[in-house]
Amino acid sequence: MTNMRTEKDLLGTKEVPADAYYGIQTLRAVENFPITGIPPHKEMIRALAAVKKAAAIANCEVGVLKPEIADAIVQAADEILEGKLHDQFIVDSIQGGAGTSMNMNANEVIANRAIELLGGKKGEYLRCSPNTHVNMAQSTNDVFPTSIRIASLQLAKGVIEALTALKAAFENKAKEFDRVIKMGRTHLQDAVPIRMGQEFGAYARVIGRDIERIERSLVNLREINMGATAVGTGLNALPEYITKVTEQLRQITGLDLKRAEDLVDATQNTDAYTEVSAALKICAVNLSKICNDIRLMASGPRTGFGELRLPPRQPGSSIMPGKVNPVMAEVVNQVAFQIQGNDQTICLASEAGQLELNVMEPVLVFNLLQSLSILQNAVRVFTTHLVEGLEADLERCKQLVEQSVGVITAVNPHVGYETATMIAKEAISTGRPVREICLERGILTKEELDVILNPLEMTTPGIAGAQLLFGERK
Amino acid sequence: MTNMRTEKDLLGTKEVPADAYYGIQTLRAVENFPITGIPPHKEMIRALAAVKKAAAIANCEVGVLKPEIADAIVQAADEILEGKLHDQFIVDSIQGGAGTSMNMNANEVIANRAIELLGGKKGEYLRCSPNTHVNMAQSTNDVFPTSIRIASLQLAKGVIEALTALKAAFENKAKEFDRVIKMGRTHLQDAVPIRMGQEFGAYARVIGRDIERIERSLVNLREINMGATAVGTGLNALPEYITKVTEQLRQITGLDLKRAEDLVDATQNTDAYTEVSAALKICAVNLSKICNDIRLMASGPRTGFGELRLPPRQPGSSIMPGKVNPVMAEVVNQVAFQIQGNDQTICLASEAGQLELNVMEPVLVFNLLQSLSILQNAVRVFTTHLVEGLEADLERCKQLVEQSVGVITAVNPHVGYETATMIAKEAISTGRPVREICLERGILTKEELDVILNPLEMTTPGIAGAQLLFGERK
Amino acid sequence: MTNMRTEKDLLGTKEVPADAYYGIQTLRAVENFPITGIPPHKEMIRALAAVKKAAAIANCEVGVLKPEIADAIVQAADEILEGKLHDQFIVDSIQGGAGTSMNMNANEVIANRAIELLGGKKGEYLRCSPNTHVNMAQSTNDVFPTSIRIASLQLAKGVIEALTALKAAFENKAKEFDRVIKMGRTHLQDAVPIRMGQEFGAYARVIGRDIERIERSLVNLREINMGATAVGTGLNALPEYITKVTEQLRQITGLDLKRAEDLVDATQNTDAYTEVSAALKICAVNLSKICNDIRLMASGPRTGFGELRLPPRQPGSSIMPGKVNPVMAEVVNQVAFQIQGNDQTICLASEAGQLELNVMEPVLVFNLLQSLSILQNAVRVFTTHLVEGLEADLERCKQLVEQSVGVITAVNPHVGYETATMIAKEAISTGRPVREICLERGILTKEELDVILNPLEMTTPGIAGAQLLFGERK
Amino acid sequence: MTNMRTEKDLLGTKEVPADAYYGIQTLRAVENFPITGIPPHKEMIRALAAVKKAAAIANCEVGVLKPEIADAIVQAADEILEGKLHDQFIVDSIQGGAGTSMNMNANEVIANRAIELLGGKKGEYLRCSPNTHVNMAQSTNDVFPTSIRIASLQLAKGVIEALTALKAAFENKAKEFDRVIKMGRTHLQDAVPIRMGQEFGAYARVIGRDIERIERSLVNLREINMGATAVGTGLNALPEYITKVTEQLRQITGLDLKRAEDLVDATQNTDAYTEVSAALKICAVNLSKICNDIRLMASGPRTGFGELRLPPRQPGSSIMPGKVNPVMAEVVNQVAFQIQGNDQTICLASEAGQLELNVMEPVLVFNLLQSLSILQNAVRVFTTHLVEGLEADLERCKQLVEQSVGVITAVNPHVGYETATMIAKEAISTGRPVREICLERGILTKEELDVILNPLEMTTPGIAGAQLLFGERK
Repeated sequence: MTNMRTEKDLLGTKEVPADAYYGIQTLRAVENFPITGIPPHKEMIRALAAVKKAAAIANCEVGVLKPEIADAIVQAADEILEGKLHDQFIVDSIQGGAGTSMNMNANEVIANRAIELLGGKKGEYLRCSPNTHVNMAQSTNDVFPTSIRIASLQLAKGVIEALTALKAAFENKAKEFDRVIKMGRTHLQDAVPIRMGQEFGAYARVIGRDIERIERSLVNLREINMGATAVGTGLNALPEYITKVTEQLRQITGLDLKRAEDLVDATQNTDAYTEVSAALKICAVNLSKICNDIRLMASGPRTGFGELRLPPRQPGSSIMPGKVNPVMAEVVNQVAFQIQGNDQTICLASEAGQLELNVMEPVLVFNLLQSLSILQNAVRVFTTHLVEGLEADLERCKQLVEQSVGVITAVNPHVGYETATMIAKEAISTGRPVREICLERGILTKEELDVILNPLEMTTPGIAGAQLLFGERK
Repeated sequence: MTNMRTEKDLLGTKEVPADAYYGIQTLRAVENFPITGIPPHKEMIRALAAVKKAAAIANCEVGVLKPEIADAIVQAADEILEGKLHDQFIVDSIQGGAGTSMNMNANEVIANRAIELLGGKKGEYLRCSPNTHVNMAQSTNDVFPTSIRIASLQLAKGVIEALTALKAAFENKAKEFDRVIKMGRTHLQDAVPIRMGQEFGAYARVIGRDIERIERSLVNLREINMGATAVGTGLNALPEYITKVTEQLRQITGLDLKRAEDLVDATQNTDAYTEVSAALKICAVNLSKICNDIRLMASGPRTGFGELRLPPRQPGSSIMPGKVNPVMAEVVNQVAFQIQGNDQTICLASEAGQLELNVMEPVLVFNLLQSLSILQNAVRVFTTHLVEGLEADLERCKQLVEQSVGVITAVNPHVGYETATMIAKEAISTGRPVREICLERGILTKEELDVILNPLEMTTPGIAGAQLLFGERK
Repeated sequence: MTNMRTEKDLLGTKEVPADAYYGIQTLRAVENFPITGIPPHKEMIRALAAVKKAAAIANCEVGVLKPEIADAIVQAADEILEGKLHDQFIVDSIQGGAGTSMNMNANEVIANRAIELLGGKKGEYLRCSPNTHVNMAQSTNDVFPTSIRIASLQLAKGVIEALTALKAAFENKAKEFDRVIKMGRTHLQDAVPIRMGQEFGAYARVIGRDIERIERSLVNLREINMGATAVGTGLNALPEYITKVTEQLRQITGLDLKRAEDLVDATQNTDAYTEVSAALKICAVNLSKICNDIRLMASGPRTGFGELRLPPRQPGSSIMPGKVNPVMAEVVNQVAFQIQGNDQTICLASEAGQLELNVMEPVLVFNLLQSLSILQNAVRVFTTHLVEGLEADLERCKQLVEQSVGVITAVNPHVGYETATMIAKEAISTGRPVREICLERGILTKEELDVILNPLEMTTPGIAGAQLLFGERK
Repeated sequence: MTNMRTEKDLLGTKEVPADAYYGIQTLRAVENFPITGIPPHKEMIRALAAVKKAAAIANCEVGVLKPEIADAIVQAADEILEGKLHDQFIVDSIQGGAGTSMNMNANEVIANRAIELLGGKKGEYLRCSPNTHVNMAQSTNDVFPTSIRIASLQLAKGVIEALTALKAAFENKAKEFDRVIKMGRTHLQDAVPIRMGQEFGAYARVIGRDIERIERSLVNLREINMGATAVGTGLNALPEYITKVTEQLRQITGLDLKRAEDLVDATQNTDAYTEVSAALKICAVNLSKICNDIRLMASGPRTGFGELRLPPRQPGSSIMPGKVNPVMAEVVNQVAFQIQGNDQTICLASEAGQLELNVMEPVLVFNLLQSLSILQNAVRVFTTHLVEGLEADLERCKQLVEQSVGVITAVNPHVGYETATMIAKEAISTGRPVREICLERGILTKEELDVILNPLEMTTPGIAGAQLLFGERK
């Protein structure tokens, strides 16, 4: 039988396992919210610890918290920052109460650890109280949003890093495939030639914009509302404390945080989160499009487009021997779907804020941190396990261009849309090459066709054979 | 200068064009809600007229509305049902006020037309008042939901009809393509042979389930709340009236309507609409998947899968001569996206209901009726302009099966997964057929391979060449 | 240093921890998909085991699998069904490959456990091979969808159970509050009186429809595609086996499963999942609306509506003493948001199916099973911790009705809309009761007002004081 | 009977009304896409005309288009820019073909009008051909995206303008309500005092961020891809033309457009649109929250919060006399839902791009332009018809603060969390004021309470009565 200690709060008493660092309020939350079984994100736990540490130092510096208590709180928080005691954070990710339970869980764990450091036994809250000392001059309503922001910013670094590597990988492929002429397709129908390098260059560019978008979305996130307390008015928070706690947090986290100019605004509004989520969603949509393209171009090996070869990562089938599937692209597609669904949840939560507070923040942060995590995880493996190992099938690409009808577009300026249409129709119905028909009909000479139907020329701006039309131009 | 008449309401007076059938409250709404520029759906206007007609008859029968006034209201409503006066419905589709403006627009138009029929001039509301007579024993809160349901049910008929025709078209194609053996693909990678008829049979089946789903979703929609008045308690509605108005609506609309058992429930809850929208959305998702498949299988003409040929519907490009694109599939994809977006709007509106009423019904019905309309419109042209004219390219399908490696799966039970894997690897890397490798290595005899690698056999359940493994079985 | 064994597959060899039941393919998947850190749902693991057990029995009965191997597989599967070996399922919930990795993880764990039971050592796959024996006559493409369906149906039982209890709790409150007359509100503005019992009756009804909707959505889910193998054609699956494996699964799971009539359809289409998710989403939207209502009615204690008192569940604030918040309603709101986001992810995944298979099923099932789990979890605690303990503040409800202006609606039929409007305006601007103004102006007598303004009467259909208008009616 | 002329294209001939400016390809599109019945947005029509004008001038300047034809095209385009001929744009907003039909509609209308200006009759395309002349050096794939961007930028100006006015209106109210002390609420439960001016200040701030976000989202939108032609490679577009056409468009539109650095990227990617839509969505979510707040604070008049009075805009009920509803807030909520649904459609369309082109752009632009339009429309009427006329009910606000328990928070630092909790509990259960209990129990003196419980003090940072705790501090 577990040893128990008795704790007390507004609603009465409760038995807590004697060796638990958490306390009565954590336990109530565990009973109230057995929802997902998923504990808070590690970065969220660390962010809460950072906040508690900063507040203790600030409160000590302004003279309202005794140094020895402050020191104990700081040391306890540091342990959590180092990854210890995380198993004491047991409230569910989805919880009522606007994060109060997560905040109180942190308050209780830190208080009990501090008590130990001060030579006491867990539960002796006169030495260090979760509310009076650890939560001093704070409210869930400033602690929780600030922690969300810190955790998000920490994770966002990894996202930027992963996307930057992906962009570089695409750029490398753009160079590597610069001379791979292949058929461009619109509507999944043969269009005109393009270089595979151009396609990968376009992928690099869109990812480049994603990086910029995500970075821009982090700007508002840096504004924290420590000192807002309950509703943003700063009740019970001394102005000197507010300045100091923000400065402390900058130092502890290494993040470029600043105090929100309007604490009422910063306490009730969640647009900084929806902004990040939107940037992630746009990136997800772009990645999904790219993965679809890659899966299409790698379709085959015998009955598809067959232009790209992916590095094999695992046997593709439990029944079909030899099958290798584009699993790394598929997982990115799925992560993209997840991020889009998460964005919807985040928007619903954001919209449900009422008056001075958004009480739906727990589900919001759950989804936001998940999006940040899975995006970087997926992009990392996608880059190393797929993009970096991509190979073009030059032979196949060349052959497809040669048998295509789309090259007729280059003939267009020379013979007019109507004649070109007639040639195209015949080419499609007979299966004969455009060049052959043009020659046979005496529409263009062999020399003209050599100039006009040069595939490489077709992949850069200009009218192939413009000099035939206009003479030499300066 | 337009001739004007002066009208009055709770908030004061206002000039109304003398020849307008609408009145002051409609005008206020026009000023308040210049949002989309899109007027109410025609079926919604007709549904409102049906409700007003039914109420007038019921009120007359229970003795609270004079027969001559009732007759005039009925005649005015009939005109609207026939398609007249629709240009008098000028309030925006998206409006505040839970549909009060749309209801009052109907009340005013009918009252003024009734006044004319009674020999008066527009605006002489003592003869027939929008509120006292046309809206007698009604509230927007029963009129509007009832009208939404009637309009939706009328449009749903067309949806069912269109989907039924599509299903039939797919079934025809399933028969027509029953012997077209082609390569099945999973992960866009070659898998094992399948008949194109099986693919189209699967499309027919999923559309069949969609029809059933949509039909099931209409059941709750048939429960109307006439008599609920303001909050569902039936204040100011006589019980005999409630019975009669419902019966009248059944007759007028020809729909199998019934009175909701609990009028409070029926007044505040909008799950009947979200249910229909969800069924439409699922159908949209399925259609989108089918269209994606068709666009893939029709990709080409030279550089894609090339298994299907679509009927050309319009020149595909303003620059590329001879290009024909799968435009009918693309428009269905887009309608599917629209319906999914609409579903989200509908859910947001539904969730925003508060207490006794959902005031967000206008945007809800705007999206629901649009989804019902565009789904049927798109499915109709998709069926006639694309599905019915589809052709399979037998030669291409056959050739792709023959050059594929996926047939190795049939060899699997005869030689074991490991040996089969080895053969497959060799086939892929060398480009040689599976059959040839098996023969050369002496793994299977020509006779055995003839049995095992029969593509048609591979498209039905069973182990090809099972008798080789187990002998003849009873 | 961990002891290792060497395993081999299509792509080469790999070291596997010697004591691991999983094998090389599981390890590859772990490397490829470090995405969410969340392992497969327990019900999914159990469902996979059920499928493997059923297949082994069926394969044995049709004579293609040796009884001793079949027995070992069955015993290993039974252990998993009992909750053992779940820690060996280590592939991430979001994975590429259409579930192949999850299927292979099950195949490997069961094979290695079976090998032990057969007296061998892990990795001695000649005794029992993950592919040849455990996966015999199966493909991921029938195993995985079948498992999704089984797991979903198992979880759905709990959803139905939880919602049924919630419905009963609402019905109890409807009875308990049947005589609590309160002000009905539309647009958050005073409307007309209603009984709180009517409001809770409406909540019970909408939940009742949700139960029916979810139950209906399970019908299609019961159709499984065992025997479909790779693309639904049943290649390598003997017809007798297909019949037997379905029958076995019915027995093992206790679920009313049946074989899909068209296995090609059942292999590629995922509408059965979107259908369940849509039903859950509609329920979520309804629950969210109800929770919003409850939070509104319980707003206060001093500065809100104050009509409802919620059982206190935990201290509401780390800074504001004595504060108690509607945390159980808030958590349901958040779960509702999560389910809506999940539904979007599910639809995106469903729409992304291509040709013979939907490779996005892993993210789909991850979200579907989460929705099923969190819905039931949240509804359970909401019912017991909030609904069952709700109390009405009769005094407050009565007082609000008495001071409201909305009762003017009952006067309407007696004095006409225009006069009633005039009285209402005066009542609002002066703050005086409607009754007083009517009396003072001589509009109605005290006796008439006693009849007309009876609040209870106002909460049932009819015109309060109809006899004053029409005389006594039969 | 209508007079007809015969036209011809790739697919054959067709009768076109003789007086129609559109031609055969427009008619084919009308037959193919009878979907929404909604024609293209006026700004889209104008943007297409701007593009055609710019191209004609550029083509003329580089010497490939004859001046007289160029002049006629320019004049025809100018007429459309002035609002003429818009009734000739008859293709449906939702259409297959990636906008080719909309482009060809513009080409045909301009060609036929140019032919008239050149002295010919409609249909005499040798004088001026839709493809050869009007569409010279263009493809739908550069014309259409460029037009989307121009139309969006034009509409975005109005959005910024409307939001700027709303922000100013909120700021005015923030000043006006600066001394209105009211009860702050979190979780809809009494929290601590706040000034209504602070609340409106927060609304102004979040709208301020929305303005910045939308403006930032327009940056990428300014990059146009004229000269990309079919797939972004610029085939058939002379480099000099590309430079000139962009410059011309800058002049014609007055927009700060620039040529995309990578035309392949700009032709296939649609992230610039999803970015704008995301910014609009975030704004919509914020507006919806604000409207919810306003509707809550204005709830009443007798049985709600009653802190705000809204300007009456229309009678609120067809049955309840005197009722006035917050219709202007409700319409904004609904517009917010619409914009969120539109964003989902936009993302689905964006994700569905494939390879060199996104063929789903028509539905994308339909939703994007609608969002831009309805947002500005709704914000304009919301500002003038609601925000500017808002009044605070000072008496009511004051009274609610006085009777609240939440002021106990200010007592907290003076007596500790546990004692404060005890006082709060007693206050809530007995209904007595906090002040009274503190006095009676001798916990604080009257003088201390005067300082501590000063509501205005509570609305600014600091510990009310800090000097009592710490003495005077510098």
